[in-house]
Amino acid sequence: MPTLFHREADRDEGPSLQERLPVHCFACGQLNAKGLRIRSRWQGDECVCRWQPGEEHIGHPGVVYGGTIASVVDCHAIWTALSHACTVDGLALGRDALPFAYVTGRLTVDYLKPADVAQPLVLFARIVEHAMRKTIVACRVMQGDVACANAQVVAVRVGEMP
Amino acid sequence: MPTLFHREADRDEGPSLQERLPVHCFACGQLNAKGLRIRSRWQGDECVCRWQPGEEHIGHPGVVYGGTIASVVDCHAIWTALSHACTVDGLALGRDALPFAYVTGRLTVDYLKPADVAQPLVLFARIVEHAMRKTIVACRVMQGDVACANAQVVAVRVGEMP
Repeated sequence: MPTLFHREADRDEGPSLQERLPVHCFACGQLNAKGLRIRSRWQGDECVCRWQPGEEHIGHPGVVYGGTIASVVDCHAIWTALSHACTVDGLALGRDALPFAYVTGRLTVDYLKPADVAQPLVLFARIVEHAMRKTIVACRVMQGDVACANAQVVAVRVGEMP
Repeated sequence: MPTLFHREADRDEGPSLQERLPVHCFACGQLNAKGLRIRSRWQGDECVCRWQPGEEHIGHPGVVYGGTIASVVDCHAIWTALSHACTVDGLALGRDALPFAYVTGRLTVDYLKPADVAQPLVLFARIVEHAMRKTIVACRVMQGDVACANAQVVAVRVGEMP
């Protein structure tokens, strides 16, 4: 149901948020051939992204680079905020023209445990606060039961979609 | 003077910190063929990194992706902390075996203005606080006179270099 935006219908089997609105962004753009091409989908009240790092995405050997974690968090949180704003405003990603976009105002990542580059990262994002001008998104980065990072993104609403 | 570590001698003409100690990290490793390969050098009390984004490193069209800025900041700050710790402990990067490494505990980036992907980012990092277990690094990201981002990194000292 690509044109129907409803959280309960938006489970892993459906198209991701990013596939409904393809852009060129390095981390989330489905049109960026050299990018990370993350995909986010709502599961209940959490927006979930499962992403497999490439072998080049290391900091110390075998360990996912923290900047790459920050990148994945950043975009996943922005899509979470954008999607939530669509829901609040009664708009559907990929169907309706959006009169706004979201950009990152502040990104904070607390690194808790090293993440194994051979395993996917699973990000769980939720809306902490939503107001007209900004939305605060919390995101935890997991590998199985291991919490690798906790993050917070302040997403700022800006005008017309570029 | 690649084996002599002295701030005043470590100006732009010399080898960067990362060239003295080549690693595989995605953002700073000179051995990572797919990475960003940033290079940092002290200029007085600031550690400076000048880095040209690739055309793929965009968020919105024409604008440097925030996650890439976070990545460059992360590594530049960690090398700033590592290099400072070497100075404090009387060790030379590339000459002495280092009994410690630094990892990121917390990364915070405040995005101030969009950065033009066609122009280099110039990062200026300085030590805010240095203690046995952690070092706090402040970093501003500039393009000419435009302050694109302000960041802070809490760098945590860990044991043996991997």
